[in-house]
Amino acid sequence: MVIMHRLNKETIYHLLEADPEKPGAGRILDVCILMLIVANVIAVILESVEGLYIPHATFFQAFDIFSVAVFTVEYLLRLWTCTANPDYANPVLGRLRYAATPLAIIDLLAILPFFLPMFIPLDLRIMRALRLLRVFRILKISRYSYALKLLGRVMKAQVHVIGVLIFILVLLVVITSSLMFFVEHDVQPDDFANIPTAMWWAVATLSTVGYGDVFPVTPLGKALGGLIALLGIGMFALPAGVLSSAFLEEIQKNGGGERGNSSHSRSPEEVVDLLERLALLREEGVLTDEEVAVQKQRVLGDGG
Amino acid sequence: MVIMHRLNKETIYHLLEADPEKPGAGRILDVCILMLIVANVIAVILESVEGLYIPHATFFQAFDIFSVAVFTVEYLLRLWTCTANPDYANPVLGRLRYAATPLAIIDLLAILPFFLPMFIPLDLRIMRALRLLRVFRILKISRYSYALKLLGRVMKAQVHVIGVLIFILVLLVVITSSLMFFVEHDVQPDDFANIPTAMWWAVATLSTVGYGDVFPVTPLGKALGGLIALLGIGMFALPAGVLSSAFLEEIQKNGGGERGNSSHSRSPEEVVDLLERLALLREEGVLTDEEVAVQKQRVLGDGG
Amino acid sequence: MVIMHRLNKETIYHLLEADPEKPGAGRILDVCILMLIVANVIAVILESVEGLYIPHATFFQAFDIFSVAVFTVEYLLRLWTCTANPDYANPVLGRLRYAATPLAIIDLLAILPFFLPMFIPLDLRIMRALRLLRVFRILKISRYSYALKLLGRVMKAQVHVIGVLIFILVLLVVITSSLMFFVEHDVQPDDFANIPTAMWWAVATLSTVGYGDVFPVTPLGKALGGLIALLGIGMFALPAGVLSSAFLEEIQKNGGGERGNSSHSRSPEEVVDLLERLALLREEGVLTDEEVAVQKQRVLGDGG
Amino acid sequence: MVIMHRLNKETIYHLLEADPEKPGAGRILDVCILMLIVANVIAVILESVEGLYIPHATFFQAFDIFSVAVFTVEYLLRLWTCTANPDYANPVLGRLRYAATPLAIIDLLAILPFFLPMFIPLDLRIMRALRLLRVFRILKISRYSYALKLLGRVMKAQVHVIGVLIFILVLLVVITSSLMFFVEHDVQPDDFANIPTAMWWAVATLSTVGYGDVFPVTPLGKALGGLIALLGIGMFALPAGVLSSAFLEEIQKNGGGERGNSSHSRSPEEVVDLLERLALLREEGVLTDEEVAVQKQRVLGDGG
Repeated sequence: MVIMHRLNKETIYHLLEADPEKPGAGRILDVCILMLIVANVIAVILESVEGLYIPHATFFQAFDIFSVAVFTVEYLLRLWTCTANPDYANPVLGRLRYAATPLAIIDLLAILPFFLPMFIPLDLRIMRALRLLRVFRILKISRYSYALKLLGRVMKAQVHVIGVLIFILVLLVVITSSLMFFVEHDVQPDDFANIPTAMWWAVATLSTVGYGDVFPVTPLGKALGGLIALLGIGMFALPAGVLSSAFLEEIQKNGGGERGNSSHSRSPEEVVDLLERLALLREEGVLTDEEVAVQKQRVLGDGG
Repeated sequence: MVIMHRLNKETIYHLLEADPEKPGAGRILDVCILMLIVANVIAVILESVEGLYIPHATFFQAFDIFSVAVFTVEYLLRLWTCTANPDYANPVLGRLRYAATPLAIIDLLAILPFFLPMFIPLDLRIMRALRLLRVFRILKISRYSYALKLLGRVMKAQVHVIGVLIFILVLLVVITSSLMFFVEHDVQPDDFANIPTAMWWAVATLSTVGYGDVFPVTPLGKALGGLIALLGIGMFALPAGVLSSAFLEEIQKNGGGERGNSSHSRSPEEVVDLLERLALLREEGVLTDEEVAVQKQRVLGDGG
Repeated sequence: MVIMHRLNKETIYHLLEADPEKPGAGRILDVCILMLIVANVIAVILESVEGLYIPHATFFQAFDIFSVAVFTVEYLLRLWTCTANPDYANPVLGRLRYAATPLAIIDLLAILPFFLPMFIPLDLRIMRALRLLRVFRILKISRYSYALKLLGRVMKAQVHVIGVLIFILVLLVVITSSLMFFVEHDVQPDDFANIPTAMWWAVATLSTVGYGDVFPVTPLGKALGGLIALLGIGMFALPAGVLSSAFLEEIQKNGGGERGNSSHSRSPEEVVDLLERLALLREEGVLTDEEVAVQKQRVLGDGG
Repeated sequence: MVIMHRLNKETIYHLLEADPEKPGAGRILDVCILMLIVANVIAVILESVEGLYIPHATFFQAFDIFSVAVFTVEYLLRLWTCTANPDYANPVLGRLRYAATPLAIIDLLAILPFFLPMFIPLDLRIMRALRLLRVFRILKISRYSYALKLLGRVMKAQVHVIGVLIFILVLLVVITSSLMFFVEHDVQPDDFANIPTAMWWAVATLSTVGYGDVFPVTPLGKALGGLIALLGIGMFALPAGVLSSAFLEEIQKNGGGERGNSSHSRSPEEVVDLLERLALLREEGVLTDEEVAVQKQRVLGDGG
């Protein structure tokens, strides 16, 4: 058939690839997959409501099988066509390297939980945990989402800073929970049974969530807890502040790129400035006529 | 009468229009409407106190009728006179387009709940919900409030960023509530009955409100909850950080505008700079005398 | 006596005035008053502990009388000597204007609650409230505290922004508490008895304190509450973000002032720049020799 | 033996010193000590779990003895070899001054709790408190941790600001807790028994932790509490904001240092700029040929 005839590897590759300038058919395909991902997430959420799941179990199961079928075909097609990308040109090694990219791993995790029980006998608890993994199908959106790509870029750029901050947070949690364990253990042997238990208090306090299920009751514990709140929260807020700044910077960098052409072109004053300087340098024998001509071209060509 | 004679469409338009340089009568009218709006909001708040409402029900009802009367006249006058604005000059289309502006819609919503039950039979529940809409009369203030206009401008400028952040928040809520549902459902079948229920926990935790009505009790749930608090809050704080920065920038931009005349006018040094450059370029035959004269005018006219 | 002889009005004025370069005696006086203020605040705190107050009531009362005596003398001396300041030179009007300055009002409020019951018969409740005012003696520190002066300066500089933000916060609280009142009133007639009651929930939620004494229980209320948390907190965090930035800026401005001399003086490159320009302008007849000489002096004098 | 022969004071000093370019043996030693520190912290945490400690008490005690032995040898070696550092060259005074450095104090505190009971008879309560100090062995990491050094640098640079902010926080806590004590004491005589007790509420509220164990119940108390939340939180968030900014600045300063060479070198335009200016100044007799040559070298040497 004609359609089949046109569906060679390169065409499929470009259809699947998220590319803002790709042809209409590819865009429609993108939208369909996106909608299927969103529908899957909604299905996972609704399935958890017993009153909804039990009467419509067959529908939910059918939808799951349909989704996995589509996602499997999508995954296999991506794996088959990835050799069209010069980076993964090698039929075996290239495909393996492609399968190891974060996006491909997400695609695999989206379908694996469905197939795994067919090959390996699993007990019910693990089966249920596998079903949980379906919610991560939402991560398939990252292939299409500017927001997640932006977040990923921020995380990558700030990975060093985030590491520093997580280290400080862990230190803070360990020290404060140890202190509070020693102070409150005798009075509240359940809530501060041991340091790991006291960490629940430390995290709830330092993050300012403060559920109120655990809190110091002795005067010393309250004084210490108050001090920890006063001093620790400043430090706990560091990641948020750093991430905010990094996020904003990244966004402005992107936005700046779009407006860059006009705002970075030389103003008339700057053009005059450069021209007069070249004239002077020629006059004084620093630059030859040819060199001046070359520079003039650059100045006029850039923003004249 | 003389007064009536003066009240033609243009005069009323300028009286109603929020314009810092408008005549005294218009300013008095502004203050009156503003006070009526504030009185309405206070009335809605006080009406909700049964001990106050029941003994003074007639007063509250009379005040509501009076307010709606004034707001209706105001709305109709605005609709009638908006054609004085060249943007809405067309008697029919212009008025329709004016009625579709956000401020006009707010004005309509402020009076509609009063008239609706006269035309459509409504059951009591909806009637009560309609009365709720009266609190939105407070939004009529936005016509006069610099603060709300500023906020609106910030929102508009950052609409893209806010979209990105809301998307990330929704993702975060979906993933964390799914995880916690699977971990805690067996032990707390009521509080973590299903994923939508677990979302209440997720929002309360990630926003650090932490009411304490729902929290994980299993060790795994606490570990996961602590981790979510540690990692998620940084991300949840992003919108606040971004909005703060944008707000500050917008305010400084405005403040800068007022001080701009002095700080952006060319300093003596800059004037000298430009003049000497023009002299040189003329001397070297790059610019003609006329061209220099034109540029000199610009320099001296701007900040000489 | 010699000491009395030297204690004329000007000397006392300079002794009392908080001036970093004042003589040793004045500095010792400053430290004594500061210590008395801090001791007063500690006394107010300790007095509230019944177990401490009842056995030492006479001591606390004696200390209060002593403190008031010192503060009264201090206040009267300030009022008497303020005419040494040219701003308040007029014996009557100057003193009245001095008495109306914020610092003088704080000084008055620190002693007034002690004397008031002597002139006006007051019932016990008001007497107790007056004793509460003693804690505000801590504000007398603001005369000596760099931190509070800094904070005051930030507040003053940002008064416009803070006003805008408080207005937005009030609006947010009014709208969210009205909405929640209408949604939750039927189910929780006590906690959401009326809009003012619901405001307690709104403030506790929007500030992310979340005591947990009031929270929505209906699905609609939880959805609305979650939405409010998601959207409102960003706006509620605005004042903190704006204040932080303003505070930091103010501190850096101060710090910058110290380092300013070196960083703001013209670099060699800038000196060369200005000199060459002046030479050129003279050469081309734009500036006369005298004008060039004047400018040269300015350049060399500033940062040569 | 050969190994002993090589282990003179200087070699040991360089082995122990945390120096990125030190020889392999020193790096391995670093990693070993680091791992021992981390193992110690984990041991302290696990020991607090009774179900783990009681069956393995001998192991935990043996591990503690081993750790203290290693840390003691490490401390003594550091103390012995510190004279290899010119700063602490004096055998007696230098060693005392070294022992007084923060890192050496931490090292001492890591072992002292073990030896103290051998010399001084201590009651059980203090013995247990001493065991608590073991958790501070985690601070020994600061010798190796870039994150903690960075944090220390930020703290040091901002020590003045942090002091200002802590002073403001203390003031805020004192004033708000006094107010709330006077308002709520009669109704909640336990939770607001006195001002120190009320401070627990003040800290929990101002830090937005809001456990929910204490909160105002009277209408006046709620109004005041809401106001405090509204106004106070902005001020309470100051330290977090200031620390975030300082942290980010410090990190960027470090990162900037690495990229600095390329971004701060003069662009071709800047080179041309400076050359032409020098040429002109020579031409006009402002600079001599030699002076121009010197400057040219600087310009070309820097970024030519």
